[in-house]
Amino acid sequence: MPGEMSIRDIYRLTKSEVELEKDQVEYVQLQGWIRTNRAGKNVSFISLNDGTYFSNAQIVYDANTLSNYEEVSKYLTGTAISVIGKLILTPDAKQPFEVQAKEIRLEGLADHTYPLQKKRHSLEYLREIAHLRPRTNTLSAVFRVRSVLAMAIHTFFQEQGFVYVNTPIITGADAEGAGETFTVTTNYGEKMEEDFFGKHASLTVSGQLQAEAFALAFRDVYTFGPTFRAEESNTTTHAAEFWMIEPEMAFADLEYDMDVIEDMVKFCIDYVMEMCPEEMNFFNERIDTSLLERLNHVRSTAFRRMSYTEAIEILKKADVKFENNQIEWGMDLNTEHERYLTDQVVKGPVFLTDYPKEIKAFYMRENEDGKTVAATDLLVPTVGELVGGSQREERLELLEKKMKDLGMNLDNYQWYLDLRRYGGCEHAGFGLGFERLVMYVTGMKNIRDVIPFARTPKNLDF
Amino acid sequence: MPGEMSIRDIYRLTKSEVELEKDQVEYVQLQGWIRTNRAGKNVSFISLNDGTYFSNAQIVYDANTLSNYEEVSKYLTGTAISVIGKLILTPDAKQPFEVQAKEIRLEGLADHTYPLQKKRHSLEYLREIAHLRPRTNTLSAVFRVRSVLAMAIHTFFQEQGFVYVNTPIITGADAEGAGETFTVTTNYGEKMEEDFFGKHASLTVSGQLQAEAFALAFRDVYTFGPTFRAEESNTTTHAAEFWMIEPEMAFADLEYDMDVIEDMVKFCIDYVMEMCPEEMNFFNERIDTSLLERLNHVRSTAFRRMSYTEAIEILKKADVKFENNQIEWGMDLNTEHERYLTDQVVKGPVFLTDYPKEIKAFYMRENEDGKTVAATDLLVPTVGELVGGSQREERLELLEKKMKDLGMNLDNYQWYLDLRRYGGCEHAGFGLGFERLVMYVTGMKNIRDVIPFARTPKNLDF
Repeated sequence: MPGEMSIRDIYRLTKSEVELEKDQVEYVQLQGWIRTNRAGKNVSFISLNDGTYFSNAQIVYDANTLSNYEEVSKYLTGTAISVIGKLILTPDAKQPFEVQAKEIRLEGLADHTYPLQKKRHSLEYLREIAHLRPRTNTLSAVFRVRSVLAMAIHTFFQEQGFVYVNTPIITGADAEGAGETFTVTTNYGEKMEEDFFGKHASLTVSGQLQAEAFALAFRDVYTFGPTFRAEESNTTTHAAEFWMIEPEMAFADLEYDMDVIEDMVKFCIDYVMEMCPEEMNFFNERIDTSLLERLNHVRSTAFRRMSYTEAIEILKKADVKFENNQIEWGMDLNTEHERYLTDQVVKGPVFLTDYPKEIKAFYMRENEDGKTVAATDLLVPTVGELVGGSQREERLELLEKKMKDLGMNLDNYQWYLDLRRYGGCEHAGFGLGFERLVMYVTGMKNIRDVIPFARTPKNLDF
Repeated sequence: MPGEMSIRDIYRLTKSEVELEKDQVEYVQLQGWIRTNRAGKNVSFISLNDGTYFSNAQIVYDANTLSNYEEVSKYLTGTAISVIGKLILTPDAKQPFEVQAKEIRLEGLADHTYPLQKKRHSLEYLREIAHLRPRTNTLSAVFRVRSVLAMAIHTFFQEQGFVYVNTPIITGADAEGAGETFTVTTNYGEKMEEDFFGKHASLTVSGQLQAEAFALAFRDVYTFGPTFRAEESNTTTHAAEFWMIEPEMAFADLEYDMDVIEDMVKFCIDYVMEMCPEEMNFFNERIDTSLLERLNHVRSTAFRRMSYTEAIEILKKADVKFENNQIEWGMDLNTEHERYLTDQVVKGPVFLTDYPKEIKAFYMRENEDGKTVAATDLLVPTVGELVGGSQREERLELLEKKMKDLGMNLDNYQWYLDLRRYGGCEHAGFGLGFERLVMYVTGMKNIRDVIPFARTPKNLDF
């Protein structure tokens, strides 16, 4: 049908430099859901949202034109309608256009029990109606930005020739030190040998080891998929199911790793700023008034690089009362320490590097000093750790010894050791929690509000 | 370091119209893995692959230039090296360039036990070394095309404003008629109420129902994530874990659904042809000699649309002995019937539409005839069903009745029924098995060869 358009199309048209061809867009057909319906005696106004754009379209309808005026004026918030009408550009008004309805057709009613009435709902309440909340301003902005950020990630890596690899979700490997895992079974409570895979299977906590195998074939690869933790923690930053991006690069050291991380974070911010200006302005007005200032600062400054050892020295000298004031080399930094470094010392993102080997994972490359590993955490203001990365231990003997010392069963890892046996080389990678990135970019404070249907302890609705 | 390049970079340079600036590229540094090392007494040749490009770079080295000539000439297949050398363009030779080594440095040895010696290995053998097989021509081509196809999917949908939605992997919903599921637990064999989620949890078989919730907010959405079937079937087309793309569109009927499917398939083929010409030529030479002809045909023809009822009439009249020769309206078509329709009748892709409601899922929209539903399967030559889609039942009463008749527990689906209660509208969607698309585009015949680390019964290695 000629004139069938989305609200996004019309906003784009009104913003474009192109002179509108009157006969092309004089009459448009829109479909969408009523956000508000302000009915007057003869003239009424519908704010229509069709999900393609953050802003609504204003529909004007009047009793002289519409034969079903009475009926339409009773349509409640949430009702789905089709509109055919005249597109009127209103460059001097708040909204750049309105549609004068010639015809309004009902697609699907919503009655007064519709849970999203015209008022501010709490984020807690909206979590209970996760199937409807993307129809609100806040959650529609969040989930569009989430989608655009996913595209930013794919674009960033694919443009540089990285190969996207889908590492397995169900895995037989034990996750060393990565926390509790979920068991996957078809034979609940019965013998493991008779189970689907004939042995214990669990949900992956990381695709890194398999990504390494692909990096040593393709040089540059990345994963982007779901990972799982069965931790019984009810915090604002933990979920049982979340998405991770895990790039892995052969012939790369820690410095190069940090270069890529920094480029990626800046690219993602630029991308979402360009693609979602309405949503970003909304977040800056309603969710976190320092958001745009913070993100603009991050885009335009070089990330500081500081060794863990230097950070410890700074924290020791800090004129602050930390809850944990026992600052000593070898400790794991708490959130309060990380916040002090990003918010007070650096006033921006900082890569901490070269952590004590005891507090980091087995696969990280040991430095010359014998005490630290070539690892880095990217810490950013307000969110804390955004990315964790490291150069991987490529020296077979060192890696084997470390795994044995940790009591790992080397039989399960022969394939991983093969990557050092056969043409092993310097390589590095990192992990980015996707939800954490979404929170960082939107200013949202609870992970439950950036996942479409969040999974947390005792919470498996929808 | 100046001159540090990937083999992809150099191939691109040699193909570009731009005059090479000699001082920029005279000396290059490459890193990669030795595919072959043909050592002569004074002059030798290494075929180097760095994973960034399908083709190798030829490295020439001679005894007069290299102080470690003797050592280098002994490097075996699989060894990782760095090369600094002079880039020589050879436009008249088979390879467009070679690199005359000035320096070759060892990064990581591979010895004679390296499982990928220079010979043709069977695909079966390569499955056993899934961590090394992306280093072979065939599997490197497969997994690069897989990656590029994933980007094609994201590009196709995002350019049209579709919102990417990550539907949950762990789910509490029963999967109606979608086959066996995996149970997810932290409390193997103990009480369900004490389990992580406090109730039975399983791995998703489809994100469609949740995607519908998002379509009724954003209009156009798509999923792209892993799905699972615990079916004990050892066929060439089934895996326990595979990736699905599930677009869902509000204000869309079955015709529109088919339009999008057809556009998507054609876009994906175009995209991969443009981005991976070397890989596609390789598949056409080594895997399936009719591949390019078939794909080119698909790109350039309109897909036929034929009702199930018409297909049954054609099959009844067919002058062929089917194994199942009992052709009657209401039956599920077997592969042999589908093949006959695509390969003999249509000689190309065909949408079958309007199937008997008894053989299709509960959420498909019932047609006026009361006997069929607005469903479609896209059948393509050699692969069979590539996509399955339908218009969804948006009429609350009809949907509720159908679910009750099937004995479904409506308590679990109130949120899904809400989508019909509140501003429900005509909507449609489809599911595309990603591995099936990869097989279709590459000509590979076994799903185990298009998944990085395949999961099948009793197979959980890596």
